[in-house]
Amino acid sequence: MARHFDASHAAFESEFAAFLKEERGTGHDVADIVSGILKDVQARGGEAVAEYTAKFDKLQIDPATLQSDNVNLHLLAAQCPQDLRDAIDYAHDRIAAYHTAQRPSDHSFTDDAGVQLGWRWTALESVGVYVPGGRASYPSSVLMNVVPAKIAGVDRIVMVAPAPDGQLAPAVAYAAVKAGVDEFHPIGGAQAVGALAFGTSSLAPVDKIVGPGNAFVAEAKRQVFGRVGIDTIAGPSEILVIADETANPDWIAADLLSQAEHDPSSQSILITVDKSVGKAVDKSVESQLKSLSTGERAAESWNAHGAIVDAPDLATAANIANQIAAEHLELAIADPDALLPSIRHAGAVFLGHHTPEALGDYVTGSNHVLPTSRAARFSSGLGLYDFLKRMSVQRASPEGFAALAPAALRLAEAERLPAHARSVSIRSNREPG
Amino acid sequence: MARHFDASHAAFESEFAAFLKEERGTGHDVADIVSGILKDVQARGGEAVAEYTAKFDKLQIDPATLQSDNVNLHLLAAQCPQDLRDAIDYAHDRIAAYHTAQRPSDHSFTDDAGVQLGWRWTALESVGVYVPGGRASYPSSVLMNVVPAKIAGVDRIVMVAPAPDGQLAPAVAYAAVKAGVDEFHPIGGAQAVGALAFGTSSLAPVDKIVGPGNAFVAEAKRQVFGRVGIDTIAGPSEILVIADETANPDWIAADLLSQAEHDPSSQSILITVDKSVGKAVDKSVESQLKSLSTGERAAESWNAHGAIVDAPDLATAANIANQIAAEHLELAIADPDALLPSIRHAGAVFLGHHTPEALGDYVTGSNHVLPTSRAARFSSGLGLYDFLKRMSVQRASPEGFAALAPAALRLAEAERLPAHARSVSIRSNREPG
Repeated sequence: MARHFDASHAAFESEFAAFLKEERGTGHDVADIVSGILKDVQARGGEAVAEYTAKFDKLQIDPATLQSDNVNLHLLAAQCPQDLRDAIDYAHDRIAAYHTAQRPSDHSFTDDAGVQLGWRWTALESVGVYVPGGRASYPSSVLMNVVPAKIAGVDRIVMVAPAPDGQLAPAVAYAAVKAGVDEFHPIGGAQAVGALAFGTSSLAPVDKIVGPGNAFVAEAKRQVFGRVGIDTIAGPSEILVIADETANPDWIAADLLSQAEHDPSSQSILITVDKSVGKAVDKSVESQLKSLSTGERAAESWNAHGAIVDAPDLATAANIANQIAAEHLELAIADPDALLPSIRHAGAVFLGHHTPEALGDYVTGSNHVLPTSRAARFSSGLGLYDFLKRMSVQRASPEGFAALAPAALRLAEAERLPAHARSVSIRSNREPG
Repeated sequence: MARHFDASHAAFESEFAAFLKEERGTGHDVADIVSGILKDVQARGGEAVAEYTAKFDKLQIDPATLQSDNVNLHLLAAQCPQDLRDAIDYAHDRIAAYHTAQRPSDHSFTDDAGVQLGWRWTALESVGVYVPGGRASYPSSVLMNVVPAKIAGVDRIVMVAPAPDGQLAPAVAYAAVKAGVDEFHPIGGAQAVGALAFGTSSLAPVDKIVGPGNAFVAEAKRQVFGRVGIDTIAGPSEILVIADETANPDWIAADLLSQAEHDPSSQSILITVDKSVGKAVDKSVESQLKSLSTGERAAESWNAHGAIVDAPDLATAANIANQIAAEHLELAIADPDALLPSIRHAGAVFLGHHTPEALGDYVTGSNHVLPTSRAARFSSGLGLYDFLKRMSVQRASPEGFAALAPAALRLAEAERLPAHARSVSIRSNREPG
């Protein structure tokens, strides 16, 4: 049974804020353990990686190559059934199309002072993609991380995924091959992040590491940040649905459970402007849980972190949604376009009754790697931008230089940087030669 | 005396790679100290911030307000001389113009399957700007951090800057007022980062923290990352100049020293395709150092980290530049446009003989907060994008849904996520109501 809130009640604001502050993470303090593993990998390279892989994943890998004879990406990919390959191909092509549309343009303009200004976008050279093992090892996540890197023009994409006891899903392997992964190593955990960041004798270090992982992987990414780039640190998944009287309660209940089934720490919230919809969804969730093979962890998530909020109107619902800043937001209402401009913080927005979030997880083409734990307040989902960077470009003509020089000189003087001032004054009224 | 390299020598590649790997940071391991301060600020709020401020900055602040009667931003701003205000105003307006040009467009398209896809950019609500105290307390940095946030539409900009013994530069105060800072607190160090991230009784937490700082500030930003957004972690400044026979050695020497004067850890490198230019620059640096009030630290930087590289041609020079991935890159050559397409990694590129980097530090309008320590391989300078985020938006029509559903179902099945599958199957061939 999820908690109920009524946004019209006087105590709603404080009670709901407290609800949102409840911890959903694992709470482990893993910083010291991770720091030790990273130092070891930096010092001993492949030997350390192989030892941790034997210990944590029960897999023997060659320290010199970081490979295992028991885990061959292409052999595994060949085991993926044809109908599943077709679905992966279909998703691949849609993801490629969406991210191709994201390519930003270079820009250049010359202003009144005669100064040419602009920027150029260039691709990263090398990227490491972390793919989790076990329950969260998804071919869709391989596509979502690798395809944008490929479209951006990254030269070298290195994928790592733990293969406990040599096990790796054939669909994950097929997605990697399809998306064009250049190197693969069956390693995981903080040791894999260390290998990607510091390099080993056989693995050249990458420039950026993306992809979700457990608490150890997240902490390892945080610790190597600066040496390499990282994407947002991923937390448990979330869905928020705003519904009105036109919503089908059974559909909404299914959508709420589609995130609850990910993990007991996941969070599903419904905000409804029709109390009868809220009651019907609540009932449908309980009913659908009974016939769900993932029902146990979905129920755990729904009971611990789920909520149904009655809101007096859609404007209030939008305000609450902005406070939540959810990873996924469905607008299951008659006129989602009218509400969309009021939505400021969300990872991805799904409009109308026929856009369940699961469609976006797989095949709409937009990226399913999205900011969690309220990070949509300050960050975006994964996209082409994560694999490009922007160099600013500028050129002053002699006249432009003359126009700008006095202010530059005055500021350099104020900041007590005489060499800055000299690099300006030395050029005044003179030719380069 | 800087080191000399010749790119034509057989040993160049390994020797230069080793040179680039030399540590220029402080090397302090400050993680534990910072972690302790952050935990204390999170637990005790303003009381802890006031204690650390009294201890480190010798400044008494009110724990309830995080203010000091001795540091009033508007009174300080009033002390800024008029000609300096004019220069700050000039820089402000040019920075505003450049960043206004950066505003990305929302995008929406409907594909063949009948699926509407796109994204919307929205501004962050609140941002904290860290401004260093002491030697690196610059009005230009206030503008570079605050103006883009303002242009992006951030509602609340909180600036913190340590004011040791109550001292804060009037120009810094004027720049803050001019740029439209909403709140100011005279605090610094890890405790200020903690106050911005966790909030205190008088300071609401912000969504993102930007701005440079010392090793403690950088580590504090790293540790709060995830709870709030942060910009790139700043290291010592760098300049790289590529010169040909058309370059004026005195000008180049002045430019190299303009970064060397920042800090003994700064790095200035010249790559020249004309050996006589290299020799003349070397000589001019030694000569100019003598008449520079910042000469001591500039010499320390130049002697420890400076380099002159002879390259056989401009293509080789560009390759070496990409390996360095410098914060600032000047193309002091006859035809910089011809070389620009070969430049893949740099924070900012300055074209031709009349665009000294110092011009860009202050008044061209482009941002001077740029990736250091080779981070230009994977990140961009500060810009409007740092204060916006991108929400993906998607809508399937009933027909679009029908087209996409089979692949989504197959993938959900493969990933063993039955609630995902149900949220698709439950909608098949049915109306919402």
